[in-house]
Amino acid sequence: MAPAAVTLAADASRLSSADTGFMLICSALVMLMTPGLAFFYGGMVRVKSTLNMLMMSFISLGIVTLLWVFYGFALAFGTDRGSFLGWTSAFAGFSGIDRMQLWDGTTIPVFAFAVFQLMFAVITPALISGALADRVKFTAWSVFLVLWVTIVYFPVAHWVWGEGGWAHDLGVIDFAGGTAVHINAGAAALGVILVIGKRVGFQKDPMRPHSLPLVMLGAGLLWFGWFGFNAGSWLGNDDGVSALMFVNTQIATGAAMLAWLAWERFRHGAFTTLGAASGAVAGLVAITPSGGAVSPLGAIAVGAVAGVLCSMAVGLKYRLGYDDSLDVVGVHMVGGVVGSLLIGFLADGKGQSAAKGLFYGGGPGQLGKQCAGVFAVLAYSLIASAVLALLLDRTIGMRVTQDTEISGVDRAQHAETAYDFSGAGGGVIAGAAQAPAVARTRRVDA
Amino acid sequence: MAPAAVTLAADASRLSSADTGFMLICSALVMLMTPGLAFFYGGMVRVKSTLNMLMMSFISLGIVTLLWVFYGFALAFGTDRGSFLGWTSAFAGFSGIDRMQLWDGTTIPVFAFAVFQLMFAVITPALISGALADRVKFTAWSVFLVLWVTIVYFPVAHWVWGEGGWAHDLGVIDFAGGTAVHINAGAAALGVILVIGKRVGFQKDPMRPHSLPLVMLGAGLLWFGWFGFNAGSWLGNDDGVSALMFVNTQIATGAAMLAWLAWERFRHGAFTTLGAASGAVAGLVAITPSGGAVSPLGAIAVGAVAGVLCSMAVGLKYRLGYDDSLDVVGVHMVGGVVGSLLIGFLADGKGQSAAKGLFYGGGPGQLGKQCAGVFAVLAYSLIASAVLALLLDRTIGMRVTQDTEISGVDRAQHAETAYDFSGAGGGVIAGAAQAPAVARTRRVDA
Amino acid sequence: MAPAAVTLAADASRLSSADTGFMLICSALVMLMTPGLAFFYGGMVRVKSTLNMLMMSFISLGIVTLLWVFYGFALAFGTDRGSFLGWTSAFAGFSGIDRMQLWDGTTIPVFAFAVFQLMFAVITPALISGALADRVKFTAWSVFLVLWVTIVYFPVAHWVWGEGGWAHDLGVIDFAGGTAVHINAGAAALGVILVIGKRVGFQKDPMRPHSLPLVMLGAGLLWFGWFGFNAGSWLGNDDGVSALMFVNTQIATGAAMLAWLAWERFRHGAFTTLGAASGAVAGLVAITPSGGAVSPLGAIAVGAVAGVLCSMAVGLKYRLGYDDSLDVVGVHMVGGVVGSLLIGFLADGKGQSAAKGLFYGGGPGQLGKQCAGVFAVLAYSLIASAVLALLLDRTIGMRVTQDTEISGVDRAQHAETAYDFSGAGGGVIAGAAQAPAVARTRRVDA
Repeated sequence: MAPAAVTLAADASRLSSADTGFMLICSALVMLMTPGLAFFYGGMVRVKSTLNMLMMSFISLGIVTLLWVFYGFALAFGTDRGSFLGWTSAFAGFSGIDRMQLWDGTTIPVFAFAVFQLMFAVITPALISGALADRVKFTAWSVFLVLWVTIVYFPVAHWVWGEGGWAHDLGVIDFAGGTAVHINAGAAALGVILVIGKRVGFQKDPMRPHSLPLVMLGAGLLWFGWFGFNAGSWLGNDDGVSALMFVNTQIATGAAMLAWLAWERFRHGAFTTLGAASGAVAGLVAITPSGGAVSPLGAIAVGAVAGVLCSMAVGLKYRLGYDDSLDVVGVHMVGGVVGSLLIGFLADGKGQSAAKGLFYGGGPGQLGKQCAGVFAVLAYSLIASAVLALLLDRTIGMRVTQDTEISGVDRAQHAETAYDFSGAGGGVIAGAAQAPAVARTRRVDA
Repeated sequence: MAPAAVTLAADASRLSSADTGFMLICSALVMLMTPGLAFFYGGMVRVKSTLNMLMMSFISLGIVTLLWVFYGFALAFGTDRGSFLGWTSAFAGFSGIDRMQLWDGTTIPVFAFAVFQLMFAVITPALISGALADRVKFTAWSVFLVLWVTIVYFPVAHWVWGEGGWAHDLGVIDFAGGTAVHINAGAAALGVILVIGKRVGFQKDPMRPHSLPLVMLGAGLLWFGWFGFNAGSWLGNDDGVSALMFVNTQIATGAAMLAWLAWERFRHGAFTTLGAASGAVAGLVAITPSGGAVSPLGAIAVGAVAGVLCSMAVGLKYRLGYDDSLDVVGVHMVGGVVGSLLIGFLADGKGQSAAKGLFYGGGPGQLGKQCAGVFAVLAYSLIASAVLALLLDRTIGMRVTQDTEISGVDRAQHAETAYDFSGAGGGVIAGAAQAPAVARTRRVDA
Repeated sequence: MAPAAVTLAADASRLSSADTGFMLICSALVMLMTPGLAFFYGGMVRVKSTLNMLMMSFISLGIVTLLWVFYGFALAFGTDRGSFLGWTSAFAGFSGIDRMQLWDGTTIPVFAFAVFQLMFAVITPALISGALADRVKFTAWSVFLVLWVTIVYFPVAHWVWGEGGWAHDLGVIDFAGGTAVHINAGAAALGVILVIGKRVGFQKDPMRPHSLPLVMLGAGLLWFGWFGFNAGSWLGNDDGVSALMFVNTQIATGAAMLAWLAWERFRHGAFTTLGAASGAVAGLVAITPSGGAVSPLGAIAVGAVAGVLCSMAVGLKYRLGYDDSLDVVGVHMVGGVVGSLLIGFLADGKGQSAAKGLFYGGGPGQLGKQCAGVFAVLAYSLIASAVLALLLDRTIGMRVTQDTEISGVDRAQHAETAYDFSGAGGGVIAGAAQAPAVARTRRVDA
């Protein structure tokens, strides 16, 4: 994904109806990932903070959408201003963009490109929320969202994908967001939780997922939407790269799910649903930067390595004592690092670029570039996010009171509870015994 | 969306594989909105009428699909017969349509156009069902469906979108269904509930949503599918209008969600999940007619106004005493009116047409046309739907008995209950204490 | 769908960006069907085996994905070796496929074709799992998956769709998988359950679905994804066949849902949610082989016949005493047979081929071919699957212990329970009474 600086002349003759339609559908798929993430996270927490978990993702669809229109797109994809940030005033408010203008170097309207990237900006900060379960004020989270995308996401997206961005120009390969999205969000999560601390009862109380079907729904929708995220990032379908990326996405995800489950069985004795979901996401994360650069067999390697390493990484929080509640660091940061670095080994020069990794005779050059990208994004996001969290915690306060945390953040912050199965005449538990036979039973005499 | 009368000659040379593929995917997206609506509504009711709520939407996928094939498409999109209704006998039963025939003025097969519009016909009456929670006989609802689409939806779709339809020829702008879908359904809901009356316990008993995660799932799927609904309504991607519509859909929805939440916080002191979901839908509704005519900044205005006004409108039912159970009137009718009228102010002449609104120097002309469309559809649907409901109520009866309503319509009408968590050996509540440690806990020693 | 043997020369000039993008999106839709199936099945079982039901589908996304890459695609779509199996060594590991190579006779990359077909290979064995609810070891299921796709699915896919496959060359019409997918899976289910036997308590204990909303979610996602499954199977959109298939998919599904519900009401007195979901799936199954060969009115007939016959067929298990737990045989095998044979009557020669059925003056020829395809796949799959199950049962054992089955397979096999509503401070049942008023109620004073 290497868009040049936008030229603002209308150039409708190159507009491809096929690529435009594809990109709009892919944008819809990526949009669906944020609700998917909400369910993935919402199912994993206890019932008393389910809604808050959902809302931390959904609110990003509101806040970041508007910020992207106001100035985010201009900062991330505007004309480069010194390698670290862009700016094109015509992009601010989308007010200087004509519907017939094409994004430079592509066959799609600027609007189609801008909304596709908007969906990336929305989901990236939402990923962070998984580490903050049960204990953060909703207003503080909302303010954090505003500051974080402004100070961290928009610049980092420019580094990696903006024409003139330093990582982009250095040749760091990041097809769809291993650095800009996943390492970025994972490192931010780590930075924030080091500041705000653990949940009450961490490592003491059982904190079991309240609904694993909801987790699996989230995982399924994420997997589905991720095809748009990954294959769409090539912005067109005329050279087989998007199809390669699509194939590799499926393969790495399957391999990572199996690897995570195998490791879990070996270490803990059971194949868990949560392991399957976590493994799938780890594979999706790791193939995100690398899927355009490796072969299908390479994608199996990427998935398998990510499945095992992420599975090991999620246990670190207990050893080291940080409360990465829903494993954002363990899955997104570690998975992003794994995928980004493996490009340095496994790039075969036949996909998105001719660059080759160590195992294909390419020397250590690409690996060095990948290390630079990984380290810079990780360090910048970790530090900036920790500073932001510290600032907010000292001013408006990040955490709810301990009483609220124990009684549940849903009631205190949202004046709601996730479920109410009590309705007169239809109690779920009590009702079961007295309910009349239903179809499945009545079929006896069919 | 301005298709001319169909000419029945095969004309395969203009068939666009790109546009056809796009329209098929969009049709699938719009189809998914009806299940999405079912979950949105189903989560909002008490557990004793959840299944009935789901079934009122799902049954439309059966009944209206067949009616559309039999005569709906012929009435709505056939050759105009006096501005109020169309008819083309070759469309009846789809039996005179050849797979290679293109829809006039487009590059897609008649079948692709017909099935896209079919999905609109399916979801519009399903929207009404949200106002009728807990208290309507399933057979009466099914008969109502048949009559309503025949007498209300098919004609109104012809007025607005049919070549020769009076609103279409007058120049009323309705990109994807602000009048034909949302005002139409919302006014119908109002008409029906004025006839059938309130639920037992309305304004007395608490009637809390039994599953807000289910509501959010519905909202997420609606948002996702709506991109097909809106962007697909341009029937092609060659001039950037579909991309503009797509961008505006996302922007207005985000803005409306934030506006609703802000208003709710100001008035009631909390950001609720239900408010986020309702605000998003209000934004989607309002941008549906207007998204092709306004700029992205205009879309923010449309969303913000709809978010606040719809939020205020849903409270009216308590003051005025009509039981718009799940806010169909407050969200769809009001949101549709807001979006349709704002075109008269905010149309910038750069999108789907050169027509300009008051704020862009276009004079009051377009606003007048919008008022005509809004008023006509609202009045016709309200009156016709009330008459239909009255007719049915006096003959077969619309409402279940009071006993059934109190004990729950699911058992009485569907012989089922939504949930049964009792299964031997796996009680959800009792089981929690005795369950062995699971993955999340076992990771302690990973 | 009649792809010729692949030629391995790059031929990028024919690559269609439109068709490639469409096929990638369709592949994503088909991928989503497997999670959809997981929810459809998971909601239908009792709460104690919900996760196991989900996992039997999800694991196929891991195992079959890798097997397809390793050798499945080479066996099913490689150069024909004697009508029963194919092999192209360049396909093994996808290692000899270049991203610019097109699938012969199409305008899409080999990778796009291979991943679309991959999704079919994933869901077919997952369908079987519905018959095995509550009682199968997860490791035994995983081994079964490996063996079954190798010995049954890959060969049968070659018979039906592979260039040189005997059924393909005979002229058996199977647009998207009536024989290769549905009869195949349904007959396999029958074969396995005849070996492993019934659940404890079959026909004695009530075995009600624990969550009908989850069933409906599954049905909704299946319906949605099935459009990709069916319309995508034509591999392009340039001649209206894909649009015809899409239309017919919607029509037959609606008709089957209505037919099932009508029959259910007639026989059992109620329109059930489970009946609506089951009827929809029966229609989707029956139109899968036939939708490209029949007219829209023909599709209504296909759906109506399938709805009634499948509804009758699911009752047989009680009369004959086999435990087809979630009606895989009754819906998929019977629905597949209905759809495949009706082609012999209803093919009108205007769709995918010029072949005509009995009702259109085509003579009994096509019906004979359909019978051959149906019988061969049904018999082969039934016998091979029974033998495989017997082999596994005698060696590693297929069934869990009776104690495990009664206490629930989720805890024993996955060390998890699906739900935990107990979390401190947020009990769902107890909490309801004491919860503060929420939005819906607070709106009183809005």
